[in-house]
Amino acid sequence: MRILVLGGDGYLGWPTAMRFSARGHEVSVVDNFSRRRWHHEHSTDSLTPICPLAERIEAWREVSGHEIVPFVGNIEDGEFLDRVVAETLPEAVVHYGEQPSAPYSMMSRKHAVETQYTNVIGTLNLLFSMRDRVPDCHLVKLGTMGEYGTPNIDIEEGYLEIHHKGRTDTLPYPKLPGSLYHLSKVHDSHNIHFACRIWGLRATDLNQGVVYGIETDETALGERLATRFDYDEVFGTALNRFCVQAVIGQPLTVYGKGGQTRGFLNIRDTLQCVELAVDNPAELGDFRVFNQFTEQFTVGELAQLVKHAAEELGHSVEIQNYPNPRVEMEEHYYNAVNTKLRDLGLEPHLLGPELVQSMLRTIERYRDRVIVRAILPRTRWNPGELSGELATT
Amino acid sequence: MRILVLGGDGYLGWPTAMRFSARGHEVSVVDNFSRRRWHHEHSTDSLTPICPLAERIEAWREVSGHEIVPFVGNIEDGEFLDRVVAETLPEAVVHYGEQPSAPYSMMSRKHAVETQYTNVIGTLNLLFSMRDRVPDCHLVKLGTMGEYGTPNIDIEEGYLEIHHKGRTDTLPYPKLPGSLYHLSKVHDSHNIHFACRIWGLRATDLNQGVVYGIETDETALGERLATRFDYDEVFGTALNRFCVQAVIGQPLTVYGKGGQTRGFLNIRDTLQCVELAVDNPAELGDFRVFNQFTEQFTVGELAQLVKHAAEELGHSVEIQNYPNPRVEMEEHYYNAVNTKLRDLGLEPHLLGPELVQSMLRTIERYRDRVIVRAILPRTRWNPGELSGELATT
Repeated sequence: MRILVLGGDGYLGWPTAMRFSARGHEVSVVDNFSRRRWHHEHSTDSLTPICPLAERIEAWREVSGHEIVPFVGNIEDGEFLDRVVAETLPEAVVHYGEQPSAPYSMMSRKHAVETQYTNVIGTLNLLFSMRDRVPDCHLVKLGTMGEYGTPNIDIEEGYLEIHHKGRTDTLPYPKLPGSLYHLSKVHDSHNIHFACRIWGLRATDLNQGVVYGIETDETALGERLATRFDYDEVFGTALNRFCVQAVIGQPLTVYGKGGQTRGFLNIRDTLQCVELAVDNPAELGDFRVFNQFTEQFTVGELAQLVKHAAEELGHSVEIQNYPNPRVEMEEHYYNAVNTKLRDLGLEPHLLGPELVQSMLRTIERYRDRVIVRAILPRTRWNPGELSGELATT
Repeated sequence: MRILVLGGDGYLGWPTAMRFSARGHEVSVVDNFSRRRWHHEHSTDSLTPICPLAERIEAWREVSGHEIVPFVGNIEDGEFLDRVVAETLPEAVVHYGEQPSAPYSMMSRKHAVETQYTNVIGTLNLLFSMRDRVPDCHLVKLGTMGEYGTPNIDIEEGYLEIHHKGRTDTLPYPKLPGSLYHLSKVHDSHNIHFACRIWGLRATDLNQGVVYGIETDETALGERLATRFDYDEVFGTALNRFCVQAVIGQPLTVYGKGGQTRGFLNIRDTLQCVELAVDNPAELGDFRVFNQFTEQFTVGELAQLVKHAAEELGHSVEIQNYPNPRVEMEEHYYNAVNTKLRDLGLEPHLLGPELVQSMLRTIERYRDRVIVRAILPRTRWNPGELSGELATT
């Protein structure tokens, strides 16, 4: 199959590109290296040393004998993206090509505008190119569980059957997202749904939980194939950050009470899910939504899990409740449905102490690359609320 | 009160600015004249001759003795908008400053991107300036009833109490809008709601129906105070277009079966509603949604009303069902709640033959300005669906 991966130089995009290439698909990737650029701007970096895209592709060719074709440019540039789609004529597009950080989107007006511009306009450009060049192509779009927020009713997969005043309809699940980044994904979902309804395109929106982990079958084939691993306050996710903090002896920074519940999944399961979506495409005209996570945890539970696993390896670990830089409920109902990917065959890699310990060992190997000053939260959702520097409670 | 009107040179913005000025408020307006520019690009124009903004303001000063202060620039330029907000320190912002046409947004990728960029980024810039400069200011934002689409359940005002699997929550009403323009308004609603939830801003989202009419108390005070009147396929709305067609002897172009039901209101009631919202502001942190229309009609019913009213004036009128250039349901359930503005005191000007005849007489006066070629629909929602020129059924 001809597969185009947008954001193919990223944390998930690069392993995804290798996975499809390993399966014998013709894979092209698009990237503008914005994640590398944002890290330069913040003087941060991936914990794992990562190679430039061209070198990754060369290393992959040596290991696998397969070719991944790169296109360098911005998908906000509709003419660039349209040329790529016209040249590659993809049968599936896997779209990771967005600004993916909630704190980044909350830093300032400029960061918020960049996030919504990049994500919404990039995806809108893609929809037009698909309509005009490859109307049968299947869009597999990475959304986020954060689009739903934390409603007081069960979270369904994209749609909700609503009974109201004696009548019934099945409508898009109402969204109350928690950052301007998450909002950009909600906007995308609405735009993609429209393209399916009106133009007859087909799409699968993967509302993904928080991803953790470093290793996939393909990254394990050589150091030059490693994917990035972010742990800083802007691009790092909770479990990855906690593991780094455990290794360097910094208290695990739980924001607020730590009762925030979210869905999580292993990077290996991200690849499984994306592959299942591509192998079982949506019907033409169908906008399909899958909730892509395998387990729910509170942030406090994650911290406890890391603490115990790290202590078994001889690390001494404290957990510290920080004033929450975000505006969010810290104790709330949360129950999200996630059966559609399981029905397609997903076999989850669940989170246990062994997995945490394998992450910790990898982090120990790169311990001297940790940039300590970049871990504590600086980006506040409501800059007016706290004055001066954040104090610990 | 200090009131800032974004889009203050427009069809509704200019009459709104005069209305608040007449009431003794300090009114400033922002406009970039994009509607005038778009008309130049399509070789179309307002039926009514309208003066340049500076001349309008001068005429208003002569008639009323009141000053309206103009700022010329793009609200997509966050620094420009921020300077305006910092200088005017508004207590209420009435925000009409968006690309308002569904067909325009569907013309091409460029038009779609322009629409979503202008509307979403402009509003996002405004939210940041309000947060940082005037956090107590009340945002009165013009949304559209088209955000809801045509669900099979009653349309409530912004929120829906949902009972699901034994639990209950009140969540944003799910949206299924019908064009990329309507989507931009849905995106705005989500962003504004977020700013109220997270930053404690206050906003009223006026989900407005289709507006008709030319005259308000203030435009009637002099020819140089006239507001624009669009009837072309891009910027004209159904009733305005039908009235022009009746006067020039062109069949009334009903799209499809004509069973599409929508909410409508008189331009005089738009001003009443905006005034009621400004005079009764939302609480801090509240994102309030009002459905702003006074009556529901099918497009077919509107055409009949115009036909009969025009025939009484001696016009000979045919109704023609055109192949629908839009992708939409042409027969559907539609029942929208609109009690919140009535509860605040709205006294509707309902649509009857007298009102249509007064519109027809105004149009007769400007009959020689009608640009006939611009009326029939050219912009198709799904360009692949019909080939070549549109044929009449």
